[in-house]
Amino acid sequence: MDDRLYFSSDYQEGAHPAILQRLLQTNLLHSPGYGTDEFCAAARSRIRDACRCPEAEVHFLTGGTQTNAAVLNALLAPYEGVLAAETGHIAVHEAGAIEHGGHKVLPLPQAQGKLSAGTLERWLDLFFRDENRDHLVWPGAVYLSQPTEWGTLYTLEELEAIHDVCSRYALPIYLDGARLAYALACPENDVTLPDLARLCACFYIGGTKCGALFGEAVVIPEPARMPHFFTVVKQNGALLAKGRILGLQFDTLFTDGLYQTIGTPAIESARAIRGALRARGIPLAIDAPTNQVFPIWQTDALPALRARVEYGFWENLDGGRTVIRLAASWATTRADTERLCALIAAV
Amino acid sequence: MDDRLYFSSDYQEGAHPAILQRLLQTNLLHSPGYGTDEFCAAARSRIRDACRCPEAEVHFLTGGTQTNAAVLNALLAPYEGVLAAETGHIAVHEAGAIEHGGHKVLPLPQAQGKLSAGTLERWLDLFFRDENRDHLVWPGAVYLSQPTEWGTLYTLEELEAIHDVCSRYALPIYLDGARLAYALACPENDVTLPDLARLCACFYIGGTKCGALFGEAVVIPEPARMPHFFTVVKQNGALLAKGRILGLQFDTLFTDGLYQTIGTPAIESARAIRGALRARGIPLAIDAPTNQVFPIWQTDALPALRARVEYGFWENLDGGRTVIRLAASWATTRADTERLCALIAAV
Amino acid sequence: MDDRLYFSSDYQEGAHPAILQRLLQTNLLHSPGYGTDEFCAAARSRIRDACRCPEAEVHFLTGGTQTNAAVLNALLAPYEGVLAAETGHIAVHEAGAIEHGGHKVLPLPQAQGKLSAGTLERWLDLFFRDENRDHLVWPGAVYLSQPTEWGTLYTLEELEAIHDVCSRYALPIYLDGARLAYALACPENDVTLPDLARLCACFYIGGTKCGALFGEAVVIPEPARMPHFFTVVKQNGALLAKGRILGLQFDTLFTDGLYQTIGTPAIESARAIRGALRARGIPLAIDAPTNQVFPIWQTDALPALRARVEYGFWENLDGGRTVIRLAASWATTRADTERLCALIAAV
Amino acid sequence: MDDRLYFSSDYQEGAHPAILQRLLQTNLLHSPGYGTDEFCAAARSRIRDACRCPEAEVHFLTGGTQTNAAVLNALLAPYEGVLAAETGHIAVHEAGAIEHGGHKVLPLPQAQGKLSAGTLERWLDLFFRDENRDHLVWPGAVYLSQPTEWGTLYTLEELEAIHDVCSRYALPIYLDGARLAYALACPENDVTLPDLARLCACFYIGGTKCGALFGEAVVIPEPARMPHFFTVVKQNGALLAKGRILGLQFDTLFTDGLYQTIGTPAIESARAIRGALRARGIPLAIDAPTNQVFPIWQTDALPALRARVEYGFWENLDGGRTVIRLAASWATTRADTERLCALIAAV
Repeated sequence: MDDRLYFSSDYQEGAHPAILQRLLQTNLLHSPGYGTDEFCAAARSRIRDACRCPEAEVHFLTGGTQTNAAVLNALLAPYEGVLAAETGHIAVHEAGAIEHGGHKVLPLPQAQGKLSAGTLERWLDLFFRDENRDHLVWPGAVYLSQPTEWGTLYTLEELEAIHDVCSRYALPIYLDGARLAYALACPENDVTLPDLARLCACFYIGGTKCGALFGEAVVIPEPARMPHFFTVVKQNGALLAKGRILGLQFDTLFTDGLYQTIGTPAIESARAIRGALRARGIPLAIDAPTNQVFPIWQTDALPALRARVEYGFWENLDGGRTVIRLAASWATTRADTERLCALIAAV
Repeated sequence: MDDRLYFSSDYQEGAHPAILQRLLQTNLLHSPGYGTDEFCAAARSRIRDACRCPEAEVHFLTGGTQTNAAVLNALLAPYEGVLAAETGHIAVHEAGAIEHGGHKVLPLPQAQGKLSAGTLERWLDLFFRDENRDHLVWPGAVYLSQPTEWGTLYTLEELEAIHDVCSRYALPIYLDGARLAYALACPENDVTLPDLARLCACFYIGGTKCGALFGEAVVIPEPARMPHFFTVVKQNGALLAKGRILGLQFDTLFTDGLYQTIGTPAIESARAIRGALRARGIPLAIDAPTNQVFPIWQTDALPALRARVEYGFWENLDGGRTVIRLAASWATTRADTERLCALIAAV
Repeated sequence: MDDRLYFSSDYQEGAHPAILQRLLQTNLLHSPGYGTDEFCAAARSRIRDACRCPEAEVHFLTGGTQTNAAVLNALLAPYEGVLAAETGHIAVHEAGAIEHGGHKVLPLPQAQGKLSAGTLERWLDLFFRDENRDHLVWPGAVYLSQPTEWGTLYTLEELEAIHDVCSRYALPIYLDGARLAYALACPENDVTLPDLARLCACFYIGGTKCGALFGEAVVIPEPARMPHFFTVVKQNGALLAKGRILGLQFDTLFTDGLYQTIGTPAIESARAIRGALRARGIPLAIDAPTNQVFPIWQTDALPALRARVEYGFWENLDGGRTVIRLAASWATTRADTERLCALIAAV
Repeated sequence: MDDRLYFSSDYQEGAHPAILQRLLQTNLLHSPGYGTDEFCAAARSRIRDACRCPEAEVHFLTGGTQTNAAVLNALLAPYEGVLAAETGHIAVHEAGAIEHGGHKVLPLPQAQGKLSAGTLERWLDLFFRDENRDHLVWPGAVYLSQPTEWGTLYTLEELEAIHDVCSRYALPIYLDGARLAYALACPENDVTLPDLARLCACFYIGGTKCGALFGEAVVIPEPARMPHFFTVVKQNGALLAKGRILGLQFDTLFTDGLYQTIGTPAIESARAIRGALRARGIPLAIDAPTNQVFPIWQTDALPALRARVEYGFWENLDGGRTVIRLAASWATTRADTERLCALIAAV
């Protein structure tokens, strides 16, 4: 019997059972390709409803990095880059996918993985007062993630403030919702899907980390802003032939509000883990309310931990310490959480 | 009851039942991400065996266009383009994905979708005698597809001849096997997986059109040729987080020789359809032995056909004629083939 | 004494003496960089006047390939390519510079180096009737050259017809005027600078091949169409620090109508050379009225020619024949032309 | 009479008189294009001698940004980025030219515009210990500039230390010598051209800011490392048709050691200016020995300064202060330096 514990990421398991059920039921139906099928149509309709945005265009892609690259290639002019927190996924962990498309990621200072309206405004003010700005990469969009890569959340007030700054500079916001379900399931969160549709030029609703086998749903509230996005998706190698497999997953996730609650077990698990760490005196690199927990571990104690628990490597610190990531997911069981907490208590 | 017939493509259905079964069985197992899991390891091992190439690196990507782009970005130097039949998928139907990566597709004349060794040699001879060649895009690889976009097959002799030319010019061959199962299942085919591993610098074994939900397996017989391909895949947005979903599909397809025979129903269906068209006097745009059939239809008779049959648009001809595509797949039933043949007979 | 003859290209000599004179006179004046100086301002004003287009933006770049790349990167959306005659410079002799920027060159059949309105319209009609067009590279601009790479000229009627087609499809025209002075000096030409400003979204007035040391003047009649082109130029590595060197060259070329007549000696020389070739029975690969002449030579007779004359290699033909190029320039002397004609007569 | 003072940059004037003289003398000679002429050959030979590197390949390009882009596109694999001080020209003032080629600039902390071996080693050590490194942009080269953008100089010892680190990680060094003449003319400098040829995989000898009208000479000590660089240059739009204009400029600059001393007047001028500023109590943002001086000015006093002196904007500071740049050049006269010093004394 396998008694290891698996907390290395929120993409360790397959899919929510309701999704597999739909795959089985529909397997031998015939559908046209590339997202022109009825399942995609149904999913689009449900997502538009959930966002209260009947005019939105909705596209289904297979992964986060390709989604970020395709959207930013569509949003940015060739002389523009994208502003992002220096910890943003596109700035760090996408192997240069944005630069591969010819655009610079302009990194901004952050706090707890979040960009602030003030930081953004100061950067823009400096940029537009720089007499050499025509020799610089122009800011063409602002990239945010919700939750952030560090598991923190923007409040609605913070997002509105960022949006205000962006509006003054005519900058579109693009929001990466790879883990959006964990924001929506979090009691601390006050940002809804309709808020995102109102504040963002584009955002995506993550499936891969939120109960789907794979897949991300790109929402474009004002489609005229990103013409021929279908062809951009194709050009970026991000168009799935059997688009219906994406469609039926999102159709399932947006039926009966599943997406709004699918993250709840992860949120509860992470809260328990944070409690156990605090109780044991193990410091957290960051205090964030969603499904990821970032304890600071003694590097020489990691082998012992690894013998029992799959965790994620995050960052080397000096002083023989390492930040690791413990991620709970929609599939994390209460039993596993309890076992992990017990193990932490006994470290 | 739905009595329409579905022959528009070979990606209209879900996956082979054995694959769905594996998905179900393994759904709640925990795996590390990005292809580092045991299912991918098993699939790699089986594919290396099938190719008799124990040193090969095997990567799993999600779709054909992204695979072509990632491989060619890895194979080509910045000043190089890729030679391809002018009908090659990368030259036509990928929305400029290769150019998006900075490389020109150098189109060559073809016959029945195939490039010949002679055509290739003539082009290379002219190129290297062109005194202005340093101002031209250099040839950096040859792109082939097996079967071709028109359903035709290279014989082993033809492939060897192309390989001879390429060897003389130190040009790597990259072969797109999006529909490779339909070649392997075709009695006319004499090119095996070990042949491909011997003749190609890189090739991919198609899953999407050959019984998988999605996925393509890239085989690199001499890995030193394409260092850090993992990172190239990531940079191209082609790395699936839950890589195991790809791994278990290919593990299934390469268990008990399934991939070698999965295309058989399609080959038989297409043969019957070609027979019915010939019997009815409907000309074929091309005579090819695999799963795609390309009849030339009177354009004004297409609405009547469309009322009964889903088919694919291929090409407008003059004289009020249209080439359409009827594609059979691993999932095509004998009953549907018979109904289509009867319908053709009654046109 | 050097008695070789130099007809290999129209960029074999330095610059028109008036330009060198200006360089000398102004050498130690101080100017701000990057084209913000008074010489550039004066040149812009003169070019706007010559084009009767007071609203035009004018930028100075250093060479043709970089100009083509920068303009097309600015004009095209990421999912768009550029339509060009298959003999167009961007399609052949720029080492893939357009693809380097991520855009495909869509080659069209040509006659004598020229694209016809009919060919263009047929292509566009087929494109927009192709049901798979969203999987194709979209047409985003039409590239023309005047004179063409084969020395031929578009008539005003032909340009108007192409413009009509483009207007119907909302396609901008970009015209490469690398050798524009030789069109303007040609009696057969009926297309003026104001015509180009009226018909093109962008065009460039060639300096490098037309009497300048180097430099091309990009004219953008409606600047709102190509915002921040300055930054695009910088990003493409095409911004000259000492922009004034470009400015004073174009200021000189557009003073007292010099640019309109600078090509006259070349036109007269080329006419004489064509006459000598015809008289000697040496066939021309093309009959074109500008400064380039393309005789078909017996390949085995080329060494003898090369011993006396610098010519340009153009194309290998079969049957032991080679197309060569004899190019006259603004600097070609009557004496050299007569010596070349005598040499041809005695072949 | 113009009594303004011009210290805004080192590219405000034309060229060294010896260069203009050569242009005049050779103007109507005929040469083949694209750097295949005798002037380029002579310049290459002189540069190889000066670098004591007889095997080096030498290419002439027209400007710094295009040179940086072309070299890095040739040096880097597609999955690699370039490490640079965060103040490096490629990281800031090139409008994203490196990213346009698909590569990320990886910015490192700097001191006085310089990267240290220690900083580099720490970054590389962290990178290779990062378990997620295959998801990151790989380091593919180190970009240095000599002098730096802030006018500082690497000592030979510092360069050797960086080279040691790079050797251990098999990382090539690329050095941007846009202002190299000002290093060579500086008494504090101990790094010679042969040192650069020994330590760098590639570097360029700046002409534009060092007495040429324009032009940069790229030196590749081991040419096998960067095959077909000519075609890369063409593809990047950086190949000058009349290459001889570059050749004869560098031939002149490397005749009788001109390049080694051409910067001397600028070094002396800058030293005097720094003295005047210190005497007047105006702080320097950086203390650097070459031709650029960076005083911190009260922002509200800038209009008065601007009325008399052309200077360069550098950076907004808080507290109503601005860093400006006063740049001397090969063409700066003693008289102008004295007038500027007097003006500073009277501020």
